[in-house]
Amino acid sequence: MDIATLGGLVGGLALIAWGILANGLGLGPYIDPPSIIIVIGGTFAAFFIAYPLPKALGIGGIYGKSFKNPVNDTATIIAKILELANTARREGLLALEEGAGDIEDAFLKKGVGLIVDGTDPELVKSILDTEMSFISERHSESRGMLDTLGALAPAFGMVGTLIGLVAMLQQLDDPSSIGPSMAVALLTTFYGSLMANMFFIPVSKKLEIRSNEELIIKEIMIEGLLSIQAGENPRIIEEKLKAFLPPKVRESISPTAGAEAGAEG
Amino acid sequence: MDIATLGGLVGGLALIAWGILANGLGLGPYIDPPSIIIVIGGTFAAFFIAYPLPKALGIGGIYGKSFKNPVNDTATIIAKILELANTARREGLLALEEGAGDIEDAFLKKGVGLIVDGTDPELVKSILDTEMSFISERHSESRGMLDTLGALAPAFGMVGTLIGLVAMLQQLDDPSSIGPSMAVALLTTFYGSLMANMFFIPVSKKLEIRSNEELIIKEIMIEGLLSIQAGENPRIIEEKLKAFLPPKVRESISPTAGAEAGAEG
Amino acid sequence: MDIATLGGLVGGLALIAWGILANGLGLGPYIDPPSIIIVIGGTFAAFFIAYPLPKALGIGGIYGKSFKNPVNDTATIIAKILELANTARREGLLALEEGAGDIEDAFLKKGVGLIVDGTDPELVKSILDTEMSFISERHSESRGMLDTLGALAPAFGMVGTLIGLVAMLQQLDDPSSIGPSMAVALLTTFYGSLMANMFFIPVSKKLEIRSNEELIIKEIMIEGLLSIQAGENPRIIEEKLKAFLPPKVRESISPTAGAEAGAEG
Amino acid sequence: MDIATLGGLVGGLALIAWGILANGLGLGPYIDPPSIIIVIGGTFAAFFIAYPLPKALGIGGIYGKSFKNPVNDTATIIAKILELANTARREGLLALEEGAGDIEDAFLKKGVGLIVDGTDPELVKSILDTEMSFISERHSESRGMLDTLGALAPAFGMVGTLIGLVAMLQQLDDPSSIGPSMAVALLTTFYGSLMANMFFIPVSKKLEIRSNEELIIKEIMIEGLLSIQAGENPRIIEEKLKAFLPPKVRESISPTAGAEAGAEG
Amino acid sequence: MDIATLGGLVGGLALIAWGILANGLGLGPYIDPPSIIIVIGGTFAAFFIAYPLPKALGIGGIYGKSFKNPVNDTATIIAKILELANTARREGLLALEEGAGDIEDAFLKKGVGLIVDGTDPELVKSILDTEMSFISERHSESRGMLDTLGALAPAFGMVGTLIGLVAMLQQLDDPSSIGPSMAVALLTTFYGSLMANMFFIPVSKKLEIRSNEELIIKEIMIEGLLSIQAGENPRIIEEKLKAFLPPKVRESISPTAGAEAGAEG
Repeated sequence: MDIATLGGLVGGLALIAWGILANGLGLGPYIDPPSIIIVIGGTFAAFFIAYPLPKALGIGGIYGKSFKNPVNDTATIIAKILELANTARREGLLALEEGAGDIEDAFLKKGVGLIVDGTDPELVKSILDTEMSFISERHSESRGMLDTLGALAPAFGMVGTLIGLVAMLQQLDDPSSIGPSMAVALLTTFYGSLMANMFFIPVSKKLEIRSNEELIIKEIMIEGLLSIQAGENPRIIEEKLKAFLPPKVRESISPTAGAEAGAEG
Repeated sequence: MDIATLGGLVGGLALIAWGILANGLGLGPYIDPPSIIIVIGGTFAAFFIAYPLPKALGIGGIYGKSFKNPVNDTATIIAKILELANTARREGLLALEEGAGDIEDAFLKKGVGLIVDGTDPELVKSILDTEMSFISERHSESRGMLDTLGALAPAFGMVGTLIGLVAMLQQLDDPSSIGPSMAVALLTTFYGSLMANMFFIPVSKKLEIRSNEELIIKEIMIEGLLSIQAGENPRIIEEKLKAFLPPKVRESISPTAGAEAGAEG
Repeated sequence: MDIATLGGLVGGLALIAWGILANGLGLGPYIDPPSIIIVIGGTFAAFFIAYPLPKALGIGGIYGKSFKNPVNDTATIIAKILELANTARREGLLALEEGAGDIEDAFLKKGVGLIVDGTDPELVKSILDTEMSFISERHSESRGMLDTLGALAPAFGMVGTLIGLVAMLQQLDDPSSIGPSMAVALLTTFYGSLMANMFFIPVSKKLEIRSNEELIIKEIMIEGLLSIQAGENPRIIEEKLKAFLPPKVRESISPTAGAEAGAEG
Repeated sequence: MDIATLGGLVGGLALIAWGILANGLGLGPYIDPPSIIIVIGGTFAAFFIAYPLPKALGIGGIYGKSFKNPVNDTATIIAKILELANTARREGLLALEEGAGDIEDAFLKKGVGLIVDGTDPELVKSILDTEMSFISERHSESRGMLDTLGALAPAFGMVGTLIGLVAMLQQLDDPSSIGPSMAVALLTTFYGSLMANMFFIPVSKKLEIRSNEELIIKEIMIEGLLSIQAGENPRIIEEKLKAFLPPKVRESISPTAGAEAGAEG
Repeated sequence: MDIATLGGLVGGLALIAWGILANGLGLGPYIDPPSIIIVIGGTFAAFFIAYPLPKALGIGGIYGKSFKNPVNDTATIIAKILELANTARREGLLALEEGAGDIEDAFLKKGVGLIVDGTDPELVKSILDTEMSFISERHSESRGMLDTLGALAPAFGMVGTLIGLVAMLQQLDDPSSIGPSMAVALLTTFYGSLMANMFFIPVSKKLEIRSNEELIIKEIMIEGLLSIQAGENPRIIEEKLKAFLPPKVRESISPTAGAEAGAEG
C-alpha cells in the first residue's frame, strides 16, 4: 500500500471539506447530485469515445496501481544479478537455469531463459529491448488515459456551468433564485477542477515516476544479462550497474555483493 | 461497429440532455438555430481554409472510421505469418505465392509479393518502411484535422458569444431582455465546448490509438517478412513477434502456432 | 486559384455577418474604426518588432500563396522522372541534358544538371538534401509568421478591451453609457479572435499541408534522381517512388508509365 | 540600427496612446505609478530568482541586440570564403595566414588559424561544431530570459489586479469609488499584457530569427573551411555553399566569385 | 549563498506588500488563514499523491539548493584537468593517483580512479556517460517537482475561489457581506498565483540553469579525462576544453595554464 497516494487523497479531501465548513454553511450546498452526474458522466462518456472498450475498462486497474508500492527494489535486483553473474562465472551459463527458479520478475526470468538457451547475444538484446519499449509504450498509454480524464473533467465542468448559467439567466425575474442558481452552476466547475487536480493529474504523475523507475530496473537487467552472457567480471558488472543508481543508494548494496564479487573476481 | 464510440456519444448526449431537463426549463432554451449555425458554420469555414478541398471533404470518412472496429487482429496476423514461415521453410520462398492468395491485408500481400519476386532484402525493408511511414503520416494528418476542428469549435463558440454580448450590451435599457439575451450569447460557447469535448477531441484520441495498433501490426509484418526471407527458424520468428504483444495476448496464440513451428523447427 | 481558401473566407465572413444581423441591430454597432485600428495596428507593430524588415514585408506574398493551387502534381512528377529514367537507360546519363530542357521545376532541373555534370552521387545527395532542408526551413519560417500573427491578434484584442474597460469604469456615473461602452470594449476581443481563427491560424495550417506535399515531391525527386544516376531499372524506380503515394493515387500513374518501363526493363 | 524594432515599438506605443486618447479621458487614468511598480517590480523580482545574477544583469545587453542590425552578411562571408579557397588553391594552406589578417569574424578567424596550424580535419570539425553548439545554446538561453519575462509580466499583472479587486470589494459600501477602483485594478493586467506582447515576446522572436541566421552563417563557415582544408575546387565549394542560401540571394554573389573561381578551377 | 534568489524573493514580497499597503487598507484583509491552508494544503496533498514519499519529502532540500551558489567553477575545473594532463604526460597515468587526492568533485575523482585502474577507454566513457545521464535525469525530476507545484498552486487557488464564490452566492440576501465574501474568495487565487510565480516557477528555472552549468562541467570532465587517457598534448586538450566556454571566460584561464601546457607540449 502506497500510503502517500492514499494519505494525499484523504488529506486533500479532508482539507477541502474543512475549507467548505469554514464558510459556516455545511457541506450541503456543495453537494448537488445532478451536477456530479453531469461532470462524471460527461467525462466518462467522452472517455469511452476516446478509448477502445477493453482499454477503457482497464482504467480501474491502472488507477489502483498508484495505491500499491512497486514490487521491485533496485538494490535487490542488482544483488540478484550479481549472484547470477557469480554463478555463471563459477559454473558456466547453463548453471543459471537452476538459479532462475526463484526469480519472480518475468522479464529477468525470460532473459535468463534466453541466455541458457544459448541465444545469440544480439538477438537477446533485440528481444529484451523490444519488450522493454513495449512496456514503456503501455505505461505511457495508461498515463495518457489519466491525462485525458484530467483534461475532460474541467471541460465538462465548464459545460455544466454553462448549462446552469443559461438556466439562471432565463429566470432572472426571480432575484432571490439568482444566487443559489449561480452557486449550483459553479459547482460543476468546482467538481471538474477538483477531479482533475486531485484524482487524475497527480495519479498520472505518480504512474510516470513509477514507470521511469521500472524502466531503469529493466535497463539494469538488460545490461546485467548481456554482461553475464559476455562472461564479464562480476566486479566490473557491479561497477556498471551501480552507475544506474543515485550515489546514496549505491552504498547500500556495495558491501556484501562487492565482497562476493571480490572473492570471485 | 465500435459500440464504445457510439455508446459514449449517445450516452454523453443523453446525459447532457438530462442535466438540462433537470433545470425544469425543457430543452427549448438550449436550442438556438442561429447560434448553432454560427458555431458549426464558422468552424467549418475555417476548416475549409485550413485544408485543401479533397482532404477537407474526406473528414466524413475519417470520422466514420472511429465507429468501425479495426479489421486486423494481431493474433491472427502473427498466426498467418508463422504459417507463411512454415510454408517457406518447407517448400521454399516461391511457394509463398500460392499462400499469398488468401491474404486480405494489402501491406502484407505486397511484402510477400516482393519476397516472391526475389527482391533484395534491403530494398524490401526500405520499400515497406517507406510505405509504413507514409501510412503513419496519413493517419496523423487525419487526426490533425479532428484536432483542428476541436480547437476551432470553442474559438467560434467564443466569437459567437462576443457577438451576442455586444448586442445585449447595446440594448441594456430593456432590463427584461438582459437575461435571455445573455443566455443566448452563452449558448455558442456551450455548443463549441460540447462539440470539441464530445465530438472532436475524443474521436481524435481514438483514431490515435487505432493508428498505433495498426502500425504495430505493420511492424510485426515487416519483422516477420524479413525473418521469413532470411530463412529464420519459425520458432525464433514466433519468439521475436510475440515480443510485440502484451503478455496476456501472447498466450492466446502460443499453443497451435508453437506446435506447428515446433514440428518444423 | 484555391477555391477552398477563398470560399472558406468569404463563407465564414458572410456567416458571421448573418449571425450579427440576426440580432436585429445591423452591422453598425459591430464596426468601430478605432478598435479595428488598435487591434490590427498593435498586432502588426509587434509583428514588425518580431521579424526583420525584409521578412516582415514578405507576409503579403506568403499569405497570397494560400490562395493559389500548388504547381506540382505528384503523378506528373513521377511520370517525368520515369521518362528521364527511360532516357538515361536507353541513351546514357548525358542524354538527360536534352530532356532537362522542358523541366519547369528548378529543383529537379538542378538535380538533372548535377547528374549530367558527372557529380559524385554522394555530393548530389548532399547538395539536394541541404537544399531541401532549407526549403523546409523557409516554409516553416513563413508559417511561423502567421502563427505569430495568430497569437498577437487575440493578445492585442485583449489589450484593447482593457483600455475600453478602464475608460468605461472611470465613467460609471453615467449609467446609460455603460452598455454601449462595454460593447465597444468587447469589440477588440471580437476582432482579435476573428482575425486569429479566420485569417491567420487556418492559413498557417494550409501552408503547412502544402509544404508537406511539396517536400514529399522533393523527396521523390531526390530518390528518383539518385536511382537514375545509379542506373537502376525504371520498373524498380517506379516501385520505389510509388511507395511515397497514397494507394489511391498510385493507380492513376501506373498504366502508361508502367508499360513504358516494362518495355524498357 | 534595426529600424523595424524601433519603428514597431514606437509605432505600437503611439497607436495604443492614440487608442486611449480616443476615449476622451486623456492618458491620465491609464498611468498609475504604484501599478507600474508592482508589475515591473514583481516581474523582475521573479526574474532575479530565476536567473543567476551575472546572467540576469546581462538582460539589458541582450535586449539592446534586437535594436542593432546583424554584423555579418551571408554573401560577404561566402565571397570571403571563396577568396580564401582561391588563395589556398594557388599558394597552399599556409598562405591563408596572411589573408586571415583582415577577417573580422572571430569564428572564421579561429577556423583559419586551426587550418594553418595543420590541425587534423576531424579535430577542426569537432572544435568548430562544439563552439557552434555552445553559441546556439547561449542564444537560446538569452531568448529564454525574454520568454520568461514575457510569461511573468502577465502573471504579475493578474496578481496586481487581484490585489486591487480585493481592496475594491472590501470597500463596496462607497459606490462612487467602485468604478475608479476597479479601473485601477485592471491597469496592472493591461501593463502586464502590453509588456509581454510589445516588449518581451516579439523581441524574443526577433532574436530567434537572428540566431538562426547567424548559425547558418557559422554552418557555411564550417562547410567552407573543411572544403578548403580538403583542397576542394573553389567552384564546387561555391556550389555547396550556395545551397545554404535562398534562391534569390544566390544570384547576388554568383558573378564575381564565380568568375574568380572559374579562372582558378 | 545565492543572493539573487534571496534578494528576488525578499524584494518581490516587499513589493507586493507595498502594493497592498498602497490601497490604504493594511495587510489585514489580505491575510486569511483558512484560505492559506486550503491553497497550501491542497497543493501539497496533490503533490504527495503525485510523488513517492521519499522523493516528495526531498522537496525541501531541492528548494534549498536554489539558495546556494554552485560549488564548481568551470575555470578551476579546467585548470585542474590541465594540471592532471601535465602530470600524466610527465609521469604517466599511474602518477594521477597521487594528484587525485585533493579532487573534491566525486565525478572527476571517479573518472581519475577508472583511468588509474587501467580501465578500457570505451568503458570509462560508457560509465561516465551513464552516470552523467542519470545526474541529468535526477535534476530534471527535481525541477519537475517544482513545476508540478507551480501548476497545482493556481489550480487549488481556483478551487478555493470556487468554494468561496458558492458560499457567497448562497448568501446573496445580505448585500453588505457580498463584497468582503468575494474578496476572501479571490484571496485563494491570489495566493495560488503568487506561490506559483514567485516561489515555484522561478526557482525551477534557476535549477534548470544550474543543472545545465553542472552538466557542461561534467562534459568537460569526460572530454578531458578521455583526452588524458589517450595521452593527448595538454595544449590540444586546453583548446578542446575551452571550446565549451563562452569567449569571455576563456581568457581568464588561458595565461597560466597555457604557459604550463606550452612548457610541457
